[in-house]
Amino acid sequence: GVLSLCCRPPAWDRAPRRPPGLLLTPGRSFSNNKIQVELDEGSGVATMKFKSPPVNSLSLDFLTEFCISLEKLENDRACRGVIITSAVPKIFSSGLDIMEMYGKSTEHYAEFWRAVQELWLRLYSSNMVTVAAINGSSPAGGCLVALSCDYRIMAENPKFIIGLNEAQLGIVAPFWFKDTFVNAVGHRVAERSLQLGSLYSAPESHKLGLVDELVPEEKLLEKAGAVMAQWLALPDHSRQLTKSMMRKAVLDRLVAHREDDVKNFVSFVSKESIQKSLRTYMEMLKKRK
Amino acid sequence: GVLSLCCRPPAWDRAPRRPPGLLLTPGRSFSNNKIQVELDEGSGVATMKFKSPPVNSLSLDFLTEFCISLEKLENDRACRGVIITSAVPKIFSSGLDIMEMYGKSTEHYAEFWRAVQELWLRLYSSNMVTVAAINGSSPAGGCLVALSCDYRIMAENPKFIIGLNEAQLGIVAPFWFKDTFVNAVGHRVAERSLQLGSLYSAPESHKLGLVDELVPEEKLLEKAGAVMAQWLALPDHSRQLTKSMMRKAVLDRLVAHREDDVKNFVSFVSKESIQKSLRTYMEMLKKRK
Amino acid sequence: GVLSLCCRPPAWDRAPRRPPGLLLTPGRSFSNNKIQVELDEGSGVATMKFKSPPVNSLSLDFLTEFCISLEKLENDRACRGVIITSAVPKIFSSGLDIMEMYGKSTEHYAEFWRAVQELWLRLYSSNMVTVAAINGSSPAGGCLVALSCDYRIMAENPKFIIGLNEAQLGIVAPFWFKDTFVNAVGHRVAERSLQLGSLYSAPESHKLGLVDELVPEEKLLEKAGAVMAQWLALPDHSRQLTKSMMRKAVLDRLVAHREDDVKNFVSFVSKESIQKSLRTYMEMLKKRK
Repeated sequence: GVLSLCCRPPAWDRAPRRPPGLLLTPGRSFSNNKIQVELDEGSGVATMKFKSPPVNSLSLDFLTEFCISLEKLENDRACRGVIITSAVPKIFSSGLDIMEMYGKSTEHYAEFWRAVQELWLRLYSSNMVTVAAINGSSPAGGCLVALSCDYRIMAENPKFIIGLNEAQLGIVAPFWFKDTFVNAVGHRVAERSLQLGSLYSAPESHKLGLVDELVPEEKLLEKAGAVMAQWLALPDHSRQLTKSMMRKAVLDRLVAHREDDVKNFVSFVSKESIQKSLRTYMEMLKKRK
Repeated sequence: GVLSLCCRPPAWDRAPRRPPGLLLTPGRSFSNNKIQVELDEGSGVATMKFKSPPVNSLSLDFLTEFCISLEKLENDRACRGVIITSAVPKIFSSGLDIMEMYGKSTEHYAEFWRAVQELWLRLYSSNMVTVAAINGSSPAGGCLVALSCDYRIMAENPKFIIGLNEAQLGIVAPFWFKDTFVNAVGHRVAERSLQLGSLYSAPESHKLGLVDELVPEEKLLEKAGAVMAQWLALPDHSRQLTKSMMRKAVLDRLVAHREDDVKNFVSFVSKESIQKSLRTYMEMLKKRK
Repeated sequence: GVLSLCCRPPAWDRAPRRPPGLLLTPGRSFSNNKIQVELDEGSGVATMKFKSPPVNSLSLDFLTEFCISLEKLENDRACRGVIITSAVPKIFSSGLDIMEMYGKSTEHYAEFWRAVQELWLRLYSSNMVTVAAINGSSPAGGCLVALSCDYRIMAENPKFIIGLNEAQLGIVAPFWFKDTFVNAVGHRVAERSLQLGSLYSAPESHKLGLVDELVPEEKLLEKAGAVMAQWLALPDHSRQLTKSMMRKAVLDRLVAHREDDVKNFVSFVSKESIQKSLRTYMEMLKKRK
């Protein structure tokens, strides 16, 4: 099938680096350093909670744990769906960890970027039903995680923002971020939002179709469970084949250009001008605190 | 031009099987077993009424008559547009006839699938203006017929439903159903609706852009005539070239993969698990009555 | 990068014909016969005003001046954005000049069409921020100019109309007009609008996403300036790379088929039937006056 073509070819499906803190418990729930996973065997639904304060940055360690957790659930026949949410107040995920892109070796940049690609390939092509319960702000890579799920529910708090704001940092969202965004909101909204690096409040993002539904924060997990039940009412095999049909073109495009994409990233991020942009941005963040 | 490329290559434009009941009258209106066609010579508009109770299933015989009727009108210089509607109360068309997909030979499955392909290729690429006057429910293949027209008007009765609900039957809409759907409602609505096998009420389907307009049922044909007049006010040649330009990529894709698509369908529908899904679905339908 | 690939290959980037009236002043504002350009050095924003009464037709001379003006600004390091508007009351631009397509030699048709292509390639791929301040009606090629900008603001006067109405003239919008339109409003709206040659009032066009914003006419330039400032707040390099990523596929398609597209246009417009359609249309326009 398509999913095995795009997601588990020997060429790139190397076993992810195993971080020291990961506990592979024999049971159906496990926690590690940065992500907590619980599987409800009755419903077949796992809940994955990001717990990497202060802002659930997608560091190399975080991405590795995320991949391992997804793989573990994907291979667990008792699991049919996963709800992704945050255990950190007010933030879903702040996106790619800038520290991984600043002042490191080209080897490090390449390793980091492969982990970003791998996470997206796994999540966007997952055989499981994936529901993002967005209980806080979710810029850049955090938005990509949400966009890669099957359904997005956001807490209706207008202070929570979401969007692909890479342009504001002086960097550029890669083509597969863009493709995922276009698939969700269409070409025009993506073109405008990506150029402006727009971050939208929860109500704005709902109006644009960036998230599917808004609910009061205290009802978020309950609603996510109800939506999950609705998706799980369908036979898995036809739903999975349909999902694969819808996402195959975009997944295949990264698979076909994966190493070029790594090279581009490493070369781009190594530029003095980009390093300077990132430093400026980090200093701005520090001042805000 | 494009239309002759995609629609009438010798390779697949074999004369359709002629059912015994078809009356090829010399005049401008004709009826056969399952579809009644009347051409108003003054306006150049034909009305095609599905009259195959109880639910206007797209059986092999129905599809063959549908193709012949379309071909007859397409070749009739007096005909510039066709309004497609139903003579059966409460139902436009229930879609592909499951009996053609259950317990038959692989040869039968292949013949049936070629007829489904041929109907879509003819309708989606028709040189005529095609208006669907949807006066009842229209799931699955019935929805595809409507989506293949140039314009969709639906009776505003909220009990009438429409959508590509194949996933609910444990089967998968083929890629060209999907492409036709995406062209009408965009990628995101299609991705979600196809995975959930969603059926929408008339008001919901209007909101999503799945149908273009709602009117009270008693005004449906009058409105269809008015819309048709608006489309026929344009010069045929520029309208036809424009239509072809918009639909060529999607039409070409099936033409290029037609035999593979037949093989996929036959192999899929021959599976024991799919046969079982269809049996379960038919038993559910029987119990409902 | 991409922009240099699609916009300045030696093959087609011939120096445009220089019309006799063009004044290449040493300063930062210049005017010529048909277009007036002023650059505000403080903000880096140029304003380009069409002043070719009665209707700012896109004649060969107009297109040539338009290209030269764009090129001049593009190469001026002091200029980061351009606001495009009209100095003629009630009209933004009436589109391609029909006189250039009627009763001329095939060489003339080819020269004219290359100029239309060149204008679109430059404008759609411009490194500058481009804002259309649409202060009047904008059919056909006038609409294309607006669609090729980054952002469209229209005076909210319901008498002002906009759209790709080529089908009404018996001609066909070329594939790259169509691609540009689809990128702005999606496939379905484009399919329907192009076949009907629809012209929309300002409020309708806003509802469809054909323009991004409506403001009272007297606030149009002020609003355009504010929007421009918002776009210029982003770092140029990431905005430009993002814009190029979004538009590359559509730009590349014309670049790859440019000479075929010229041949198609010349052959189409040379047809007796098309010449007759254009004559009929011009006579209708004369009677209206």
